[in-house]
Amino acid sequence: MRMVDLIGRKRDGLEHSPEEIDFIVEGIVNQTIPDYQLAAWCMAVYFQGMTPREARDLAVKMAACGEQVDLSSIPGIKIDKHSTGGVGDKTSLVVAPLVAAAGIPVCKMSGRGLGHTGGTIDKLESIPGFRTELALPELFAQVKTVGIGLVGQTGNLVPADKQLYALRDVTGTVASIPLIATSIMSKKLAGGADGFVLDVKVGNGAFLKTKEEAEKLGELMVAIGKNAGRKTVAVLSAMDQPLGQAIGNALEVKEAIATLRGEGPPDLEELSLVLGAQMLVLAGQETDAVQAQVKLKALINGGEGLRVFRRWVEAQGGDARVVDDPDLLPTAPVVVKVKSPARGYLTAWETEALGLTSMRLGAGRARKGDPIDHGVGLVIEKKIGDWVEAGEDIAKVYANSEAEAAAAVAEVLTEVKIGTVRPPVSPLVIGYII
Amino acid sequence: MRMVDLIGRKRDGLEHSPEEIDFIVEGIVNQTIPDYQLAAWCMAVYFQGMTPREARDLAVKMAACGEQVDLSSIPGIKIDKHSTGGVGDKTSLVVAPLVAAAGIPVCKMSGRGLGHTGGTIDKLESIPGFRTELALPELFAQVKTVGIGLVGQTGNLVPADKQLYALRDVTGTVASIPLIATSIMSKKLAGGADGFVLDVKVGNGAFLKTKEEAEKLGELMVAIGKNAGRKTVAVLSAMDQPLGQAIGNALEVKEAIATLRGEGPPDLEELSLVLGAQMLVLAGQETDAVQAQVKLKALINGGEGLRVFRRWVEAQGGDARVVDDPDLLPTAPVVVKVKSPARGYLTAWETEALGLTSMRLGAGRARKGDPIDHGVGLVIEKKIGDWVEAGEDIAKVYANSEAEAAAAVAEVLTEVKIGTVRPPVSPLVIGYII
Repeated sequence: MRMVDLIGRKRDGLEHSPEEIDFIVEGIVNQTIPDYQLAAWCMAVYFQGMTPREARDLAVKMAACGEQVDLSSIPGIKIDKHSTGGVGDKTSLVVAPLVAAAGIPVCKMSGRGLGHTGGTIDKLESIPGFRTELALPELFAQVKTVGIGLVGQTGNLVPADKQLYALRDVTGTVASIPLIATSIMSKKLAGGADGFVLDVKVGNGAFLKTKEEAEKLGELMVAIGKNAGRKTVAVLSAMDQPLGQAIGNALEVKEAIATLRGEGPPDLEELSLVLGAQMLVLAGQETDAVQAQVKLKALINGGEGLRVFRRWVEAQGGDARVVDDPDLLPTAPVVVKVKSPARGYLTAWETEALGLTSMRLGAGRARKGDPIDHGVGLVIEKKIGDWVEAGEDIAKVYANSEAEAAAAVAEVLTEVKIGTVRPPVSPLVIGYII
Repeated sequence: MRMVDLIGRKRDGLEHSPEEIDFIVEGIVNQTIPDYQLAAWCMAVYFQGMTPREARDLAVKMAACGEQVDLSSIPGIKIDKHSTGGVGDKTSLVVAPLVAAAGIPVCKMSGRGLGHTGGTIDKLESIPGFRTELALPELFAQVKTVGIGLVGQTGNLVPADKQLYALRDVTGTVASIPLIATSIMSKKLAGGADGFVLDVKVGNGAFLKTKEEAEKLGELMVAIGKNAGRKTVAVLSAMDQPLGQAIGNALEVKEAIATLRGEGPPDLEELSLVLGAQMLVLAGQETDAVQAQVKLKALINGGEGLRVFRRWVEAQGGDARVVDDPDLLPTAPVVVKVKSPARGYLTAWETEALGLTSMRLGAGRARKGDPIDHGVGLVIEKKIGDWVEAGEDIAKVYANSEAEAAAAVAEVLTEVKIGTVRPPVSPLVIGYII
């Protein structure tokens, strides 16, 4: 088999055989296929796509060529949640303890963030003392006793994806639906869960801007998961404004705690219940998703979710007092209000831009390895469709200096649209792919 | 400027600015753009194409980044002919001396062949003593005194093309019309002629199989040439059977000599007159192509073409006696006739396959640097539309051994189609792009 022929086949729109997929993945891992051939192949995939069968074979083979986590020592059906990423998305912090409170073991591997805000790991590390570098046996033991645990992703999970992603990043082939789907799903498969609830974000704060693209990605990921023998559903959710109000690590932890207390923003609670309910259904604990939502809402009202969150923080060495006194979380020294420049309806947030403003305040990383400032970020006070008076508060900037705050305020003012026509309210949950 | 952004622009179907093209070519020549980015870019070009403006800029910049031949010391307008390559294409050997006999200086740089048969250089080297390694001043002096000269291509012509072609060859991006057009035209531009007659071959013996592709390539090459300030025309000609009868180096030289004597195959003479006439028109010597053909035909009939050929061979150290006694050319020890397996019309030749049979006999190179056997090859005796009786000679195989001859005969029998319905005769000259 010669890679140049496989490039030609993909270029001409033909389907790779399972043997061809194996050849490519082994060539990546063993570095026997030169980067220039992989780059040409990625671009051919960008234009010609992949069938669900090819994508499944690719994801499974990539997962197989590296470390694979074995969760079998943890009793019960393990369901993982994954989000394709959005601004202010802290659902994992709410869903994980809620689902654990419902009796589903939660054993999560999570990455650090790149771009607008930190990842779940970065957010949790804003809790003083919280350790995310547990060894797997330690993690498994904690899940068995506390019901929940989370660690940073092990370095040997799907090495083929690391190499391929680094190449895609510099060859204009990141935005390929099948390559995104296989990249995500190979890591999910290697993570060892029995099922996956995938939150596919769509809108101006997500990397997929249209429902059509999001649907395609969701369908392909669900097909990969199912064909690989794992229960999989995808939820398409709106990311045309930040989820909830907070953007920034400690700010988001505070909001997650408020939500577990029943005092969170309605959209964050809604999506958390929707995603958690799907996890309960996949785990076989509930058959009806609406009933599962009712159950999870009761775990908020009864405080069980918050109690699990507290135990989780304690188990991983964090200062659990933050649960009752969120002011113990790091907070920025300068807080400046952003006032509405006009009177009217808030018609749009430029969500990705808000995320980048938050990143520039220090809440996210421009480059891998950059430090994170846990205290800074934004809190938006008004959502799309809200009426605002000129001069009314629409957001707060949490910054390290007056100068940085002033720059962020100016940016936020360019990232909000105020108009006289009330905008249609688009649904938060756009659809399900089952 | 970052190459990853330029790849993205091309991937999205946008047009590169002249500055972007300069950046890419300089990056190739200076090796500051890694191969994997060039490979992804080539594949994006494969799918998105190039505008004539982009292709012109690319070809001009590639030509500028390397040695450029200065023909200004040779008086008169220098017109170069280029063929995209076909089986049995020996028109250069006929056209060059004819046009020189008409008073147009012919100063040709030619490549060695790869694939089915040798290039013009290889063919001429089948004449004992013929030297093709002249230094440029020696070549120019010869053109000034004899009117004609030919050398192998200098190594420093368009280094960017060498690097890019080597990469395309292993990344499935050879068959991109704009990359083919710029590859050819950059070398033509660097060769320094004032105008170009491009013979674009189409059919089962050419690399372009359809008229549509050939038309696209011809149009783009003509646009590049004209926009670079050179007179340029393209002739689309049929390559659905070998041109003339001979395939193989000395065999083709013999056929060219016969054609200059007025005794060549009609198709070879026709195409030689058509291409030569275009050269006369571009050189400003004639205004009417038909009149130019009449003039060239007279130079065949009067023997002037053959006399120039003889002087040319002498000037480059060759044994000019071959002109009068072609049997002095190297010839294979074994000649075997191929007999028609059936009675009927010859409906098709699998032309590329015939070329490959000839290559396997030793007439062409499977790999760069392979030696050439000048004496071997094929002569087809029947053309498409001819009536043949079962057992009648349809071809001759010239081989180095009985075993090789037998293998070639078996191959030729699979490469000919005999049928009962007389096939339509397609025109040799399909069209002009002016």
